[in-house]
Amino acid sequence: MNSLIPEYNPPDFARPEFAEAPVVKVEPAPLDGVVPQNFHGTSNHPEYVHLGAGRWILAGESRMDSVLVLRGETLEVVEARRVKRGDPVVVGRTENGEEGIYVHTSGFTSAASAAADKFTFRTRGTRETPFSRSYDELYQVLRHDRDQGNIVWVLGPAVAFDKDSRDAMQGLIENGYCHALLAGNALATHDLEAGYFRTGLGQNIYSQALQPLGHYNHLDILNEVRRAGSTRQAIAELGIRDGIIYACETQKIPYVLAGSIRDDGPLPEVIADVYRAQDAMRVHARKATTVMALATQLHSIAFGNMVPSYRVLEDGRVRPVFFYIVDMTEFSADKLANRGSAQAIAVLTNVQDFIVNLWNNLKKP
Amino acid sequence: MNSLIPEYNPPDFARPEFAEAPVVKVEPAPLDGVVPQNFHGTSNHPEYVHLGAGRWILAGESRMDSVLVLRGETLEVVEARRVKRGDPVVVGRTENGEEGIYVHTSGFTSAASAAADKFTFRTRGTRETPFSRSYDELYQVLRHDRDQGNIVWVLGPAVAFDKDSRDAMQGLIENGYCHALLAGNALATHDLEAGYFRTGLGQNIYSQALQPLGHYNHLDILNEVRRAGSTRQAIAELGIRDGIIYACETQKIPYVLAGSIRDDGPLPEVIADVYRAQDAMRVHARKATTVMALATQLHSIAFGNMVPSYRVLEDGRVRPVFFYIVDMTEFSADKLANRGSAQAIAVLTNVQDFIVNLWNNLKKP
Amino acid sequence: MNSLIPEYNPPDFARPEFAEAPVVKVEPAPLDGVVPQNFHGTSNHPEYVHLGAGRWILAGESRMDSVLVLRGETLEVVEARRVKRGDPVVVGRTENGEEGIYVHTSGFTSAASAAADKFTFRTRGTRETPFSRSYDELYQVLRHDRDQGNIVWVLGPAVAFDKDSRDAMQGLIENGYCHALLAGNALATHDLEAGYFRTGLGQNIYSQALQPLGHYNHLDILNEVRRAGSTRQAIAELGIRDGIIYACETQKIPYVLAGSIRDDGPLPEVIADVYRAQDAMRVHARKATTVMALATQLHSIAFGNMVPSYRVLEDGRVRPVFFYIVDMTEFSADKLANRGSAQAIAVLTNVQDFIVNLWNNLKKP
Amino acid sequence: MNSLIPEYNPPDFARPEFAEAPVVKVEPAPLDGVVPQNFHGTSNHPEYVHLGAGRWILAGESRMDSVLVLRGETLEVVEARRVKRGDPVVVGRTENGEEGIYVHTSGFTSAASAAADKFTFRTRGTRETPFSRSYDELYQVLRHDRDQGNIVWVLGPAVAFDKDSRDAMQGLIENGYCHALLAGNALATHDLEAGYFRTGLGQNIYSQALQPLGHYNHLDILNEVRRAGSTRQAIAELGIRDGIIYACETQKIPYVLAGSIRDDGPLPEVIADVYRAQDAMRVHARKATTVMALATQLHSIAFGNMVPSYRVLEDGRVRPVFFYIVDMTEFSADKLANRGSAQAIAVLTNVQDFIVNLWNNLKKP
Repeated sequence: MNSLIPEYNPPDFARPEFAEAPVVKVEPAPLDGVVPQNFHGTSNHPEYVHLGAGRWILAGESRMDSVLVLRGETLEVVEARRVKRGDPVVVGRTENGEEGIYVHTSGFTSAASAAADKFTFRTRGTRETPFSRSYDELYQVLRHDRDQGNIVWVLGPAVAFDKDSRDAMQGLIENGYCHALLAGNALATHDLEAGYFRTGLGQNIYSQALQPLGHYNHLDILNEVRRAGSTRQAIAELGIRDGIIYACETQKIPYVLAGSIRDDGPLPEVIADVYRAQDAMRVHARKATTVMALATQLHSIAFGNMVPSYRVLEDGRVRPVFFYIVDMTEFSADKLANRGSAQAIAVLTNVQDFIVNLWNNLKKP
Repeated sequence: MNSLIPEYNPPDFARPEFAEAPVVKVEPAPLDGVVPQNFHGTSNHPEYVHLGAGRWILAGESRMDSVLVLRGETLEVVEARRVKRGDPVVVGRTENGEEGIYVHTSGFTSAASAAADKFTFRTRGTRETPFSRSYDELYQVLRHDRDQGNIVWVLGPAVAFDKDSRDAMQGLIENGYCHALLAGNALATHDLEAGYFRTGLGQNIYSQALQPLGHYNHLDILNEVRRAGSTRQAIAELGIRDGIIYACETQKIPYVLAGSIRDDGPLPEVIADVYRAQDAMRVHARKATTVMALATQLHSIAFGNMVPSYRVLEDGRVRPVFFYIVDMTEFSADKLANRGSAQAIAVLTNVQDFIVNLWNNLKKP
Repeated sequence: MNSLIPEYNPPDFARPEFAEAPVVKVEPAPLDGVVPQNFHGTSNHPEYVHLGAGRWILAGESRMDSVLVLRGETLEVVEARRVKRGDPVVVGRTENGEEGIYVHTSGFTSAASAAADKFTFRTRGTRETPFSRSYDELYQVLRHDRDQGNIVWVLGPAVAFDKDSRDAMQGLIENGYCHALLAGNALATHDLEAGYFRTGLGQNIYSQALQPLGHYNHLDILNEVRRAGSTRQAIAELGIRDGIIYACETQKIPYVLAGSIRDDGPLPEVIADVYRAQDAMRVHARKATTVMALATQLHSIAFGNMVPSYRVLEDGRVRPVFFYIVDMTEFSADKLANRGSAQAIAVLTNVQDFIVNLWNNLKKP
Repeated sequence: MNSLIPEYNPPDFARPEFAEAPVVKVEPAPLDGVVPQNFHGTSNHPEYVHLGAGRWILAGESRMDSVLVLRGETLEVVEARRVKRGDPVVVGRTENGEEGIYVHTSGFTSAASAAADKFTFRTRGTRETPFSRSYDELYQVLRHDRDQGNIVWVLGPAVAFDKDSRDAMQGLIENGYCHALLAGNALATHDLEAGYFRTGLGQNIYSQALQPLGHYNHLDILNEVRRAGSTRQAIAELGIRDGIIYACETQKIPYVLAGSIRDDGPLPEVIADVYRAQDAMRVHARKATTVMALATQLHSIAFGNMVPSYRVLEDGRVRPVFFYIVDMTEFSADKLANRGSAQAIAVLTNVQDFIVNLWNNLKKP
């Protein structure tokens, strides 16, 4: 790798405290979707279990708030609702090895640690925090992961409401910066409305002018796509030639549209069952090396809960997963931090500006 | 009724412009879940269609963004996704009668209208707006509708995180101020966690103290309820004796828990399919006379879209439906206003304080 | 002018209602700083008074909440606190000519007005509003007013905390896009700290790294400048070579630093008396053709109150004054709107991104 | 004292590291308002200096960002701008005794410290944090400090805009819960407008109704008070009988009105020079035992900078100073925390509700 992507320092299982560690224990799940009482709940950090004789194995792609199922030497991270009766579930709530479970939180921490004063200003990120270096690093990360990683975008509807930001997102997709897109019915519907009517909820995406009867555009595009039977078919029939969903379709980028009780329509591709939608999102969570979550608290937190903080590459190396959350309010960032997505890097700004700015930088040769 | 609940002024269909109005037109739906191209989209105002010879009928309980299905003299408001092929759907996009459709937006407006200056300060509600009278009116409305109306609560999880606000909500339910509760998996889970562990996401609901390993409480309560098979059964088995869900169960208040992609668990009662959840919520939208939506943008907007601004009582009289939205940010209130829920009365405050304050006032004899 | 800067349509004083208008009345101020009870309070719109015989004169550069002093044919807009005993103050509270006072609110309104539906989504600006055209227009306005106008910047401290935004602001000043700068002690101090220490409140403006004992940097720079006796002298002695204040000093751009009770230090140039500071700001309010107010509610509202909505050019033509307010929260924009600064165009974003974006566009040839 | 007010644990200067500490050094200030380069900047914690032979003395009422002037055995905390040429200023930037300066940050920390998990939810306060115990403690603190302490209120204008909250604040003042009030011109002006016209910026404080020409009320009340020559005189002449300022005047509670560039008017009592205003506020900062800062970022941060975290009582005992900050946004609370006012307890709510709620609880016998 390179200086951008820190090396992983695996635990030193030769250390004495590990030598004395017991073999990890499992208990059978009592019912479908129900786990043993003392189950071990996973974090998004690398988690190891001890098979005995000093042999520890790492769970692939962990996530928040799931359980470990251990079959022979195969260790799987499984949501409790997907556990089947009798599955061997890892039990134990310590994380330091004393029950054969070790959670490795410092795999990517550099040796140098800042000297701490008794008092410092500005220990919390706010809208006034300087982001210059964060942006420079982000550009490099995205350039790197375009070719050697997997960039997953989680988008709220605001990106589709503005001509420039919608164009920018299309540019990013068409130039390889998006390997999967996660969103809701609204983002896709507003984007298709913009492609067909040049409006978002009836308001011109360039001029802000409210179009007469424009609020019907939203319902009409939904009806047209439902009539066509699929978004792909509707794009062809309606002659849509630009936008975020258009770019995904033409570039063969997978997208997951998760249903919500706020939906009108919905578009045919929307997954009505939220737990099936979680499963579809989790497929991309397992592959992601960088996540860009913009302007959607619901989808950002949902995806934040299921993304590991690390990924095991095909050659066995372990690298961190970057998680950028871009939103207007400290509340969203704090909320993510409070849910444990501590690796999340918050950028507090308007997502429309953010995405325009990003594309202006990345499109340069 | 009384001065609290304004009289409804029906349209005067004797006026000449109505006399010349054509009979309303319908067209058959081309496919299941697809409506004719020129369909009429409903608002949440009273909507009338002309059957001919000066006979206009009112749609019962309208809602935003649905269609009208007219069978003989029966006029139903139906979500487009629920329309069946061949259903006779009202077409026409004018609202003034010229296509036989009349939307009556001024049914509850008093004659007196304020004289307008060229300039006034403070035309927009903010956190600095005086709410004294709004509160006084709210207390009266709730007292009235406890016995003569139907009060639907839409609750975000914050209400369950604080001992005093959770107690207050329990008091309101046990004293008749809640006829139905709409929420998500989180509110119910946090409330049951509080009932069993005295914590919310591991933090003591009274003292704020973080309990050791307390983050397991959230997962443990979910697992326990899933093991018990139902929330009712779990309350009995675990000996839970207080809280919001406990009060609903003991008072036989119906509650709808709608699924979301952010859910852990979920609890057994959560409806996984969001469109089935919408249908379950719509049942209560049709009955509501007052809606209290607290601290949940997702559920508030979802429900706001499906609540009429009026209700036809059993004796044929028409009364307004009150919709209070209580949240911390102008953004939520603006967003609701932008979606057309114009009748929404926004109260900008912390919902925990709001509910404690409310109960302190209502519990007095 | 051109299509960017709309033509002014003066009132047609030949219309009958004006022909019958009485001559405007004045009354002497009873005391220094006290005005007659029925005084006319000004708006920021063009205000005319009738001198008799159909002769109406326009007040130059009006502002919110001041009074009109009429001496012969000279009509001055004066803050009440600056009125002297005996000054002839215009009285009357109507604005339609019936007391000889006419407030012209539609001087820049185009003839075409949008057709209004009963219902439209999105009538309020939020963080989701599309800003593409606003940005394009802003770039053109700034290019125009660089040479043919007067651009006043009102800056909060956030601009100085980030390397890229500080560089961008310096670029704008050095390239003629700033004719005056209004700020507080904090902006200037943080900017000088960045120039000398590369930090803002001890945090590196590029990397976000907290420097050991870095919180002293803020106090040290204040002490150094106070020792030097002036900011200009300190820049020379300390060898500061970049930044916002450096650019103002080297480009001879006037800047006003208004004192506040939050100040440390202060820098020698800060005006301690807030009403003297208002007077110094008002000098620039009279000249401004475009105002850019970024990330400071205090200074933005203060300046918004004293900026006219129009300016009388040397050749007698009248043009609008543009007022852009850039901030993160709807609250600030709503607050400005509630204070009557209705011409303010709100852009809801992070000011650091905004200014970087702006300079990226303007620096292109 | 009692369990409410924690005991102070002074440093143990018998410990070896203190025994070896050198005598503190001073250097003369080079100019009026300029301090020596290596000056020691104060925190709001108890700060001790070593006079030699194991004799350490405590600075009375410290504050953020000032300096220590040591004359003989008298140690004063002085703002740098108030230092005179030649004053002996303490120098040294360590805080652990090695330069004869010791900052005691743990004087009120209990021995028990919570066991820390690797992971916990909810380590940051947000609007969802449970405040039940905070409120209960606050009521007790205020009851205690009414008689045995000094409660200073810092009020933003929102408190005066609402009838119920204005009444509540009046009740608190009249019942001994306020020993000093700090505010700006706006709070006092809006309160007097409410007392005379029943409006705030022209909007009825109970009903929200906008009064015709009501925006003049604000300017008229300012003009009337200026004509009367003082607020006290105006209250008498205008027959004002209620409100916050009325209560201060009748109860002889000192109030400081600090000027700002946003002011209209101003009222005669407003201090135009912000540094003189700081000095007037600092008088109360030295006496405060509890600070209640509501809905004003400017005044809260200003006062937060000058309030000690402790107070030396007349009998020599040391007690903590409580600082409650009540506001709607996480931003304000974070900003205070970033400025070092770490002892601040943030309550995120609408201040109108807060104050009504508070008074409802405190007025019970």
